[in-house]
Amino acid sequence: MQHDLPSVTVSRLVSYLRVLADMEAEGVAYVTSERLGGASQVSAHQVRKDLLLTRVTSGTRGRGYTVAILRRELSSTLGLTRSWRVAIVGMGRLGQALADYPDFSGFNFSLICGFDRDASKVGKTLGTLPVFDTRELADRAREQALDIAFLTVPVASAQAATDLIVAAGIRGILNFVPTVLTVPEAVRVEPVDFLAGLKRLAFYLQPHAAVAAAS
Amino acid sequence: MQHDLPSVTVSRLVSYLRVLADMEAEGVAYVTSERLGGASQVSAHQVRKDLLLTRVTSGTRGRGYTVAILRRELSSTLGLTRSWRVAIVGMGRLGQALADYPDFSGFNFSLICGFDRDASKVGKTLGTLPVFDTRELADRAREQALDIAFLTVPVASAQAATDLIVAAGIRGILNFVPTVLTVPEAVRVEPVDFLAGLKRLAFYLQPHAAVAAAS
Repeated sequence: MQHDLPSVTVSRLVSYLRVLADMEAEGVAYVTSERLGGASQVSAHQVRKDLLLTRVTSGTRGRGYTVAILRRELSSTLGLTRSWRVAIVGMGRLGQALADYPDFSGFNFSLICGFDRDASKVGKTLGTLPVFDTRELADRAREQALDIAFLTVPVASAQAATDLIVAAGIRGILNFVPTVLTVPEAVRVEPVDFLAGLKRLAFYLQPHAAVAAAS
Repeated sequence: MQHDLPSVTVSRLVSYLRVLADMEAEGVAYVTSERLGGASQVSAHQVRKDLLLTRVTSGTRGRGYTVAILRRELSSTLGLTRSWRVAIVGMGRLGQALADYPDFSGFNFSLICGFDRDASKVGKTLGTLPVFDTRELADRAREQALDIAFLTVPVASAQAATDLIVAAGIRGILNFVPTVLTVPEAVRVEPVDFLAGLKRLAFYLQPHAAVAAAS
């Protein structure tokens, strides 16, 4: 297994895995690099290069990769065969929506608890999650062996909440707040930026862009 | 202005724009390609190549680009200087959280209305948005000149809702549902995949990955 994959490769592996999950659900048994690439919007050559990097072994000349095995191999490479313990920091509407999001557990992400500064939420259960005071982050992170935090606080509190998450020893942050966070090198932040996708959409919806794309 | 930019370039321009907005807010006047690249996690060479493609003209030998001008030029290239009219299809918790999300209007994205199949929501105002019946999509899209739909319905209804959006003549979909949508070529879908970021996090949090990254 390789651990020094470039982040663009990791992103593509995640896309392949998503396509493979859909294929497996539809009962597809084999997939060629052409088809996997087509569904992931990359070239067949890129797919083969990426899978070579991960030393995936499920390919068969002629009919391609076995969907179920390739999916399992990629899951293992991506660290998705162990379970990850997640807290939601910021139990506003977005935090509560995420607490209800159906798909996390299917990938071994277990939502454990929420944190909020609002005293009216602390001590309650919101969307199945117990809510603790954000100031208790360090104690609860240790007690609950938290791995990952979803950051869903207002922009103005984002860095302060991040500092508490980092001080609590949590090494992964999924950042839903539209701002850049400052963290030490050992901590990984993955942004979920609604606006980035929206801005890409705007580019493609421009009348001239549509003309260029169609030509 | 170029309209046939590769989608990876568009993604990077969106990142630069985000960094520039932060810099402008902090009162930074000039930025070199080195600094812009550093903040966007790409090389200075890549920044210069991308900006060349967009025919940005604000660079000055020595002190770099004027932050305010570069930001304006990129906004224009990305189609962010006109206003876009957005509907939220699926007014559950996530739809309502998005209705409250503070940042859309800052980029000329105007949230106009919501749609839901739930009769108890139709006719109400949720998070400042009037909610219509999803079956009225075609009529309302014309009447309200809707450009973009945020798709926030359950997975099981995603394709059916998408078909209604497409039939209504809306050409851009920001897809929050963790499933692949089938749309005609003239319609652009941008996925917002929470799980993709989460899976990338998992990869980097694996103990061996951390060791490799540190070496």
